[in-house]
Amino acid sequence: MTGSGTSSADGISNGSSRSLGSFEFECGEHLPELEVAYETHGEFTGDNAVLVCHALTGSHRVTGSVDGQGEGWWDEVVGPGKPIDTHEQFVIAANVPGSCYGTTGPASTNPETGEPYGSDFPTVTVGDWTRAQRRLLDDIGIDRLRAVIGGSVGGMNALEWVKRYPDRVERVIPVATAARLDPQLLSLSAVARRAITSDPVWQGGDYYPDHPDSGLALARQLGHITYLSKESMDEKFGRDLADCQPRSFPSGGGENDGQTADFAADSYRDVESYLDYQAQKFVRRFDANSYLHLTNAMENYDLAAGYDSDAEALSEFDGEALVVSFSGDWHFTVEQSDHLADAFRRAGVEVTHRSLHSNHGHDAFLAEPELVGPPIRRFLSNDAGRFAPVHASLFAQ
Amino acid sequence: MTGSGTSSADGISNGSSRSLGSFEFECGEHLPELEVAYETHGEFTGDNAVLVCHALTGSHRVTGSVDGQGEGWWDEVVGPGKPIDTHEQFVIAANVPGSCYGTTGPASTNPETGEPYGSDFPTVTVGDWTRAQRRLLDDIGIDRLRAVIGGSVGGMNALEWVKRYPDRVERVIPVATAARLDPQLLSLSAVARRAITSDPVWQGGDYYPDHPDSGLALARQLGHITYLSKESMDEKFGRDLADCQPRSFPSGGGENDGQTADFAADSYRDVESYLDYQAQKFVRRFDANSYLHLTNAMENYDLAAGYDSDAEALSEFDGEALVVSFSGDWHFTVEQSDHLADAFRRAGVEVTHRSLHSNHGHDAFLAEPELVGPPIRRFLSNDAGRFAPVHASLFAQ
Repeated sequence: MTGSGTSSADGISNGSSRSLGSFEFECGEHLPELEVAYETHGEFTGDNAVLVCHALTGSHRVTGSVDGQGEGWWDEVVGPGKPIDTHEQFVIAANVPGSCYGTTGPASTNPETGEPYGSDFPTVTVGDWTRAQRRLLDDIGIDRLRAVIGGSVGGMNALEWVKRYPDRVERVIPVATAARLDPQLLSLSAVARRAITSDPVWQGGDYYPDHPDSGLALARQLGHITYLSKESMDEKFGRDLADCQPRSFPSGGGENDGQTADFAADSYRDVESYLDYQAQKFVRRFDANSYLHLTNAMENYDLAAGYDSDAEALSEFDGEALVVSFSGDWHFTVEQSDHLADAFRRAGVEVTHRSLHSNHGHDAFLAEPELVGPPIRRFLSNDAGRFAPVHASLFAQ
Repeated sequence: MTGSGTSSADGISNGSSRSLGSFEFECGEHLPELEVAYETHGEFTGDNAVLVCHALTGSHRVTGSVDGQGEGWWDEVVGPGKPIDTHEQFVIAANVPGSCYGTTGPASTNPETGEPYGSDFPTVTVGDWTRAQRRLLDDIGIDRLRAVIGGSVGGMNALEWVKRYPDRVERVIPVATAARLDPQLLSLSAVARRAITSDPVWQGGDYYPDHPDSGLALARQLGHITYLSKESMDEKFGRDLADCQPRSFPSGGGENDGQTADFAADSYRDVESYLDYQAQKFVRRFDANSYLHLTNAMENYDLAAGYDSDAEALSEFDGEALVVSFSGDWHFTVEQSDHLADAFRRAGVEVTHRSLHSNHGHDAFLAEPELVGPPIRRFLSNDAGRFAPVHASLFAQ
């Protein structure tokens, strides 16, 4: 069912998976078969599709209960009566190529070898995620989106939509994101990748069924710190000592598996214990090669790529944009969102930048649904003009 | 020659080393013999001794040319005619216990076994550094300091001096430091330590003559990023691609020594190349166990330890303080220096906080000598009252 704007989307159910057949990546390599895991919520009326793009380690499980994993990652934002109201909107979320939640990624079996792809998996880009989503939407009969929204690298995914397919999107909501990663975060991400590739278990990417837990744990801990703010870490942990012993992450590569220095055990702190706990959960649910691929995609994303500027990259889009940022976010800063909003403005797009006050840092887009929800709800309502930018209203007499 | 204030310090020469005999650490363990490498500049007149405390990976080589390593780490600040003017001041700098530049550390030979101490080296604290310096000064006949100054963790070392030996110090200059590390930097430091202890070569600390280059390189890169600011990284590197291939740091523990992911090689950037270059230099000059010990000492330093507050810890000091901070520093923030200056003030100490504008981040105390030099020069001059705090002058009518 390839579609017109009035196609219904009967037959789509929660937690589906669909083969898109052969898929060529921007790097020139291809997979014989790309399977995409996705989820939909609500009823498709022909013009109410909202694509929700997930962040680095997120998935298509955006709302509702997820088997053994609690709630979806934006359960308080997406659902019946919630800001992205599935009584009104038809929500689609798809796991991106390269990830490990059902969409084909490096841990998936290569049908040509019967083994996991590992090091043979093609380099993925945010553009590839967007192209795969477009193929999926075509396949299920959705040719136009009322909105595309995403947080963090999911926001880059949303931006790529309006750059690449401007006539298929009415509204875009980049949340806690930027046109590109700044050099500070770029280098932190590179160090995190290096932690994985330095783990002897990694073996160039061909480690299955083993897994470089130690390297991935380090990478995740480093990433996690960038999602928090000084303020939230002060409030949440302070410098309190933990009342437990250090956790270990066997590196599998030597005789000191999981060892820590004796002296460090005496001053193990709550913040370390928290990061260890988070990392321990994470290495059980995420694939290290996926982490490498997705962070690499984030590092290399550049909205202006192929254009002279961000504004030019957005110039074909004639919908509306709501840029959302958080005051305590140092992963993607308020200034970067200011720059992004400026680019929309220069591209002639109606844009509002809502900079929300939060101590939660980058995590705020997940941790403070009550903050991020209301502006999204208002922006998605049909009440045109409510978000007319200030500079437009000045000349509207 | 243990001394009165009028002792001369004849016989002290640049680049000396002195055995302090047996040394008991705060942890209760002891070394049969603590050797301390130190350097002096200028002529001791009895009341002109200035102790310069080095940062994490610094040394006693504070000025002048250092064999094969260029200049000392504060060559533009310390020397004849320079802000810490060795025509007027008698400058002493000592390498701290646990380091690897001549003072006994984990890589030194344990005389009882004939092997490097490795995992047997006692846990060191900033208090131990201070106690060892005091022993050294006693030994060479200096019983009172005109000033103690230090940057970064060297600033903590300077603070510990006025807390522990308040009647032996006239002036203190904590530069780009804080009363304690905040939880954000604490956790980044812990992740860096983990990178070392996860390296299979580390072997619990008993790796000599091998060395966990891969883990130490990661730790250093992570540390290095915290010394820079977003602004300086933007200006210095942007997102430019490097014109060379990724460097490798053999982990020695597996078959993927020094491998990087293929896709990452295609997008190797200047900032990564810079960090790799710096790390490659660093692993040749620094010992991984020393890095673990010194970062651990920094993480655990707390000015208020043993007291109810920072102000109480400083209350016995009746000299003057100059607190110097840099606007772009997120390792030790201006706010933390504000807090420190407040603590001095509440302790009744005459204090001035000079917050200097710099884009260089934490590195500014090394990278911008022309900025940090003048206030230090003025503070060290004998012109009493020049640094009288504003609130004092308001009531000086």
